[in-house]
Amino acid sequence: MSARPQTPLLDQVTLPEDLKRFSDSELTQIAHELRSETISAVSETGGHLGAGLGVVELTVALHAVFDMPRDKLIWDVGHQCYPHKILTGRRDRIRTLRQEGGLSGFTKRSESVFDPFGAAHSSTSISAALGFAVARDLGGQCDGGLGDAIAVIGDGSITAGMAYEAMNNAGHLGKRMFVVLNDNDMSIAPPVGAMSEYLSRLYAGEPFQELRSAAKGAVSLLPEPFREGAKRAKDVLKGMTVGGTLFEQLGFSYVGPIDGHDMDQLLPLLRTLRQRATGPVLLHVITKKGKGYAPAEAARDKGHATAKFDVPTGKQHKAPSNAPSYTSVFGNALVEAAAEDSRICAVTAAMPDGTGLGLFAERYPSRCFDVAIAEQHGVTFSAALAAGGMKPFCAMYSTFLQRGYDQVVHDVAIQRLPVRFAIDRAGLVGADGATHAGSFDVAFMANLPGMVVMAAADEAELKHMVATAAAYDDGPIAFRYPRGEGVGVELPERGEVLEIGKGRVVQDGSRVALLSFGTRLEETRKAAEALVARGITPTIADARFAKPLDRDMILELAANHEALITIEEGAVGGFGSHVAQLLADEGVFDGGLKYRSMVLPDTFIDQASPKAMYDVAAMNAEQIEAKVLDALGIATLDSKRA
Amino acid sequence: MSARPQTPLLDQVTLPEDLKRFSDSELTQIAHELRSETISAVSETGGHLGAGLGVVELTVALHAVFDMPRDKLIWDVGHQCYPHKILTGRRDRIRTLRQEGGLSGFTKRSESVFDPFGAAHSSTSISAALGFAVARDLGGQCDGGLGDAIAVIGDGSITAGMAYEAMNNAGHLGKRMFVVLNDNDMSIAPPVGAMSEYLSRLYAGEPFQELRSAAKGAVSLLPEPFREGAKRAKDVLKGMTVGGTLFEQLGFSYVGPIDGHDMDQLLPLLRTLRQRATGPVLLHVITKKGKGYAPAEAARDKGHATAKFDVPTGKQHKAPSNAPSYTSVFGNALVEAAAEDSRICAVTAAMPDGTGLGLFAERYPSRCFDVAIAEQHGVTFSAALAAGGMKPFCAMYSTFLQRGYDQVVHDVAIQRLPVRFAIDRAGLVGADGATHAGSFDVAFMANLPGMVVMAAADEAELKHMVATAAAYDDGPIAFRYPRGEGVGVELPERGEVLEIGKGRVVQDGSRVALLSFGTRLEETRKAAEALVARGITPTIADARFAKPLDRDMILELAANHEALITIEEGAVGGFGSHVAQLLADEGVFDGGLKYRSMVLPDTFIDQASPKAMYDVAAMNAEQIEAKVLDALGIATLDSKRA
Repeated sequence: MSARPQTPLLDQVTLPEDLKRFSDSELTQIAHELRSETISAVSETGGHLGAGLGVVELTVALHAVFDMPRDKLIWDVGHQCYPHKILTGRRDRIRTLRQEGGLSGFTKRSESVFDPFGAAHSSTSISAALGFAVARDLGGQCDGGLGDAIAVIGDGSITAGMAYEAMNNAGHLGKRMFVVLNDNDMSIAPPVGAMSEYLSRLYAGEPFQELRSAAKGAVSLLPEPFREGAKRAKDVLKGMTVGGTLFEQLGFSYVGPIDGHDMDQLLPLLRTLRQRATGPVLLHVITKKGKGYAPAEAARDKGHATAKFDVPTGKQHKAPSNAPSYTSVFGNALVEAAAEDSRICAVTAAMPDGTGLGLFAERYPSRCFDVAIAEQHGVTFSAALAAGGMKPFCAMYSTFLQRGYDQVVHDVAIQRLPVRFAIDRAGLVGADGATHAGSFDVAFMANLPGMVVMAAADEAELKHMVATAAAYDDGPIAFRYPRGEGVGVELPERGEVLEIGKGRVVQDGSRVALLSFGTRLEETRKAAEALVARGITPTIADARFAKPLDRDMILELAANHEALITIEEGAVGGFGSHVAQLLADEGVFDGGLKYRSMVLPDTFIDQASPKAMYDVAAMNAEQIEAKVLDALGIATLDSKRA
Repeated sequence: MSARPQTPLLDQVTLPEDLKRFSDSELTQIAHELRSETISAVSETGGHLGAGLGVVELTVALHAVFDMPRDKLIWDVGHQCYPHKILTGRRDRIRTLRQEGGLSGFTKRSESVFDPFGAAHSSTSISAALGFAVARDLGGQCDGGLGDAIAVIGDGSITAGMAYEAMNNAGHLGKRMFVVLNDNDMSIAPPVGAMSEYLSRLYAGEPFQELRSAAKGAVSLLPEPFREGAKRAKDVLKGMTVGGTLFEQLGFSYVGPIDGHDMDQLLPLLRTLRQRATGPVLLHVITKKGKGYAPAEAARDKGHATAKFDVPTGKQHKAPSNAPSYTSVFGNALVEAAAEDSRICAVTAAMPDGTGLGLFAERYPSRCFDVAIAEQHGVTFSAALAAGGMKPFCAMYSTFLQRGYDQVVHDVAIQRLPVRFAIDRAGLVGADGATHAGSFDVAFMANLPGMVVMAAADEAELKHMVATAAAYDDGPIAFRYPRGEGVGVELPERGEVLEIGKGRVVQDGSRVALLSFGTRLEETRKAAEALVARGITPTIADARFAKPLDRDMILELAANHEALITIEEGAVGGFGSHVAQLLADEGVFDGGLKYRSMVLPDTFIDQASPKAMYDVAAMNAEQIEAKVLDALGIATLDSKRA
């Protein structure tokens, strides 16, 4: 650990109200100290660094000018909220970020009244701010009171349709509210799409010095459009556009762009806006992701997310990995498949690296499509690629695929188009916590007629499933796999095309059959080993398919065992529910079967290590063992924990 | 039935290629005949009239100029596709529209190669067109070949975020493709939002005569921006805007607006665009919904959807209703609740009438929010209203709530905000077919931690559930109810606040317990009556709640009966799956229980009457009866049908 930075002024700030005592130049100093404190904290915890460093000045300025928590400050996504947490009574816990029992890496209502609306998925903040503004005008009451509503949203997040829907509604309603567009020309990867190019044109070639003088002239700019001086200042401010920005066309007053690292621009402009705004205002602020920390500024991802690191050098302390990540196995397998089949293409929603498509994009740039943060469009675009004879792999995290659910139903499943869904981050994900858990995809995919749903038990299985999906052309097919490293099995030279709807028996045994769907297979094996000591050798099977089910295998397991237990990294409604439906339909329960279904519990589980989260979920080896003993009526101390 | 119209030229058209033989003035005549034929057909079948009448000329012009099915013509939503169907080999079946076994009321891939991408939910067409354009350039192959891609999208549909996501991507990729913006200033209701106001400004005050001459000058307008004549024409064409339209800012060439009922504008301009476009082009066409049929033009909804009608007068033949619709019971109950609680407000995504909020909007305009076709935003906006102390009722059809699923998970459920989801059109919906079925909501809502999920068994129960939702403030709560009329029970003066998680036993019996969730209760009663003749008096229970389950009631039913059968209007993964999970967890299956779960089958069911669709789904009284007999091992002829 490096020495903690000296922060004499910041040490006098516990809550935002403390900022009101300081002069503008002292606030600038506080911003410097806040940057050092943020770097220091993240060096100890790991986490999202670059986004926070980019908004240090903005954070101080907003809290100095507005009146939180009465005013509602809503950080879109929340990656950038660490400095905000430090200023809002959570500095004493900032070095517990993303740890079990510690502060969330995102804003969270249950954590602080200064987080009026939690985030983690992008592009929700404008909708949320509008809701607070409307509630205020309707006389709504809530903790802290209801004053202004301020959304801070990045130029990546604003590519999502939801942000546009919210602006469309806000521009129509005309309520006073603020949207701060934090434009750093980055989301996680550089943003793509026409909107991003448009934003670049808005400030292309304008040196900050000129913008700065414009901002200083902005004191009288809003909102009286007919006042001579105001009008002139407004024209100067938006300068480079003629006839109205896109935001003005949607009903917002547009102000900017200004330099988001210059307190002398931020403070007076925010004060002016606060005094004078009557309707929706969009303030366009240019910032630099990773600002003020050289290793972050130099990094390709601008220090987006980092492991613990050494502050002077930026060197990250990463644990050596034992096996390739599922994500990279997917990415490599897809590259190999694409070499043999020119119809294979890939679609990602602003996560080329997160989904393992980096190499694919490099090797096959014309077949790789980053559609921006646009899961709805991404799914339907994939459907049309399939209709046009291509083989699209639509690679999304389980939790983000929720954004494109209607499109999966309406455009893919009903039309039976062969889109391949590569569902990453299935199951519990660790430090990102409940908002990023991939808990529901099996349930919401497997009940769609004609959908094939697979889960990989290990990285070799994942490779087979990529091959299977590439070969399958009769309709949509999905395969899910978790965050993190594989279990270390040897990877086959080539993926094998699996028979659709066929599972595999991994170990023959008696009395109890353990039927796993996905990567709990490893814990299931461990549980089985432990049971041997009690004289029980379970049969172990890997279902591979939640849909279509391996009917013969499952009925045989039920017929030949006293107990049948399904295990999956998903909520009720998924694999186990399909098995139960089969067993009920076939009358298997009529004569009695000790059937149990181990699913994620009915709670949102806070961040911790995946192992710890699966302990909370009661889905690790010990708990599988206990479930078996309980089902068989073998009372033990252990079984009480299941 | 009125006499069929005379259509001498249209009679010579079987497929679009036949149009190529006619002169422009003959094409104008064909458009007139096509309008008459459309009116005549819909007068016999009922269905969507206004949208089709608005695009008669556009349909003829597109098919005359482009080369379908090689060129891919994609109608957004599809309400306007009847004239297209008449021109593409389906005239002989056009009077079977929306009937069982007949033509779909939407475009449908399985129906015709001229429907390259089916629709029904709005705003998918630009994504689809882009997918076809990309597939073409990658060498994809499909039925009919792959030429140009043309999306026709209404000004209502373009308010959805998905359309913006697609434009953002299309503008970035720069592929040749066409978006025809069919601007009739209507979706189902008049569209709302800043975008709609923006579009109005784009053509405000420009008489069509001037636009027409501009369009005629457009021959040389695209895409060489530096060519003197072209540039001038382009400037004239867009006339009223300076500095670029919103569409140009997103990377499209913008052409228009032109009069979409004037073939002398449409034909030359489409020919020019087809010859010259190299990138994405947006053609802004002004049309009139219901055009050319006086009763439709005069109607408030511009003849959006109609029952069978008399052509000369427009008088609709509606069957007298026996009971109020569920939708109106909801709307009235909400108005009553709002009278007593000023915190109650309502959110709809462009369906104020469809969701029964018309009266609410009239009575409480400041508390009713039509957010446009924007389910994602609508859900998160509701979440923030709740966070701001209001009591939002988010009223959406089951099938459209799919659009806001991630927001339900991420913004409502994880934050445990008390949003009330009024889920209309739950279950099978009749003439709108598979795309509008509300099959999945119980599954995708009930596995969310903290969500309360109810289904109304009849209209009185619905009234209770509105009261229950209004009173419940501990977290999110949802209630579902079907399309159509109630069963005719007496409505209580006031809705009663139900105990959360408690069902009710409707009839005591023995041997078999029938546990219904939702409006299958009526069929369940009928089945029970029929069973009396066989000496079986079933117990009947109405679960009311899929979550939390009435644990005590269900375990008691299981303990006291030989068989337990759940019945619900939803797919596997929903109510029955939660019941099975409970029974498994409690070890109820260990000793044997004839458990069956009646759910929607694993197919998308085509349009028919709801009764006929539930026959296909095997969920009517006879089939429930057969299921009971089968479970009890009483073999009958009937039971074979279950």
